Amino acid sequence: MLYIVGFGPGSYEQMTVEADRALQESDLIIGYTTYVDIIRPWFPGKEFLVTPMKQEKERCRIAIEEEKKGKKVSLVCSGDSGIYGMASLVYELAEQEEGFAERIHVIAGVTAAASGGALLGAPLSHDFLTVSLSDLLTPMEVIQNRIRSGAESDTVLCIYNPSSRKRGDYLRMACDIVLEKRSGQTVCGYVQNIGREGEKAVVTTLEELRDTQVDMFTTVFIGNSHTRNIHGKMVTPRGYRLETEKERA
Amino acid sequence: MLYIVGFGPGSYEQMTVEADRALQESDLIIGYTTYVDIIRPWFPGKEFLVTPMKQEKERCRIAIEEEKKGKKVSLVCSGDSGIYGMASLVYELAEQEEGFAERIHVIAGVTAAASGGALLGAPLSHDFLTVSLSDLLTPMEVIQNRIRSGAESDTVLCIYNPSSRKRGDYLRMACDIVLEKRSGQTVCGYVQNIGREGEKAVVTTLEELRDTQVDMFTTVFIGNSHTRNIHGKMVTPRGYRLETEKERA
Repeated sequence: MLYIVGFGPGSYEQMTVEADRALQESDLIIGYTTYVDIIRPWFPGKEFLVTPMKQEKERCRIAIEEEKKGKKVSLVCSGDSGIYGMASLVYELAEQEEGFAERIHVIAGVTAAASGGALLGAPLSHDFLTVSLSDLLTPMEVIQNRIRSGAESDTVLCIYNPSSRKRGDYLRMACDIVLEKRSGQTVCGYVQNIGREGEKAVVTTLEELRDTQVDMFTTVFIGNSHTRNIHGKMVTPRGYRLETEKERA
Repeated sequence: MLYIVGFGPGSYEQMTVEADRALQESDLIIGYTTYVDIIRPWFPGKEFLVTPMKQEKERCRIAIEEEKKGKKVSLVCSGDSGIYGMASLVYELAEQEEGFAERIHVIAGVTAAASGGALLGAPLSHDFLTVSLSDLLTPMEVIQNRIRSGAESDTVLCIYNPSSRKRGDYLRMACDIVLEKRSGQTVCGYVQNIGREGEKAVVTTLEELRDTQVDMFTTVFIGNSHTRNIHGKMVTPRGYRLETEKERA
């Protein structure tokens, strides 16, 4: 069996019971160095195998080969195993292996949209667009077009991979696209190192976000026209018809 | 303390360790009847309070009032507590209560996008738009405009609340909008009763999905132009540049 396990944002408590059990049962746990370093202390005595960043394909191939030797293998992803995770790559690589798809078991996890949202308040109570600013595998025009479509349709934006060493100004670019359609006072937020040392959640405005430097462990939220800052929390109402009208009147 | 707890799709194993602990520690657990019926067997001896559907505001008010009596209260939501959950309504209702925001603790959960995606394969490995077809609180034009924007920007769509007794043809309406921009052979999927009795995951095409009757416990996934059906699984590649080009050549 090959488990593809999302272990959540980074604390043991934010992992599901199912993920915990799959990892406990595994003979071998494979992952990117940084993520294995996070979970290693939770599973003392386990066999781990790490591969560096950008070696995703190699990592998946090793997982498939080790499983074929008869081992129970877990391939770990932070957050969810599907949402910007490794599950799709495993299915693609295993396509030619007869009957292999049935030996793959995808175990969902709490993605940064949910865990980051919880820290900020409730930014995703209405429709949202999840978009990654990484253009390693996606043309920049496609990414920009998506951001524009989200901005035009007043959709909350949840941005993954907002920055990296080579892409220091991508978040500014994204904010500028949204600013064509939305006020600079739009309530925004960002979270860093969720569930880990250095955890930080900031509620801000779109014009301030534009000038903020973030790192690759950051998830960014841009509110819709109804998103509010309530006592320092980022809160998007569940609809466009006010539910608390009576209370406010 | 008022916990707003997302307990995941519906099985104990898919709840986070943190959610489990918060519910164990609570003096009172409040929720919609159907959801309390799911979790009640996991917490024998606990005090539960149920309110019917569409009584969300009343439910939140009761939770706030009970917390003010000095109780540890949990308000439960299926999936995540933020994504189409109750967290925003609690913040809105508690806005006038001095210092109350600090007593609210939002606990994230595995939302249907992630848990449903895991059952289907890996449909959300690339950017996606999460949209609810419920027009109780949102004008239909806003919803349609969002679906159109997602269709035009080749974004994967993840549809919550695709149907109800009064909205039997809404999914067909959504599919028709996407069909203006995307092939009828686009790979789609839907999941029902995730983690519960009657769990079902179906991979299909957009033109077949259009003629499918689903219920309110269904989550629907519409792939982008690159989404594939791999041995019966719905798989969206992580980018637009094929990672397995060499293997296929």
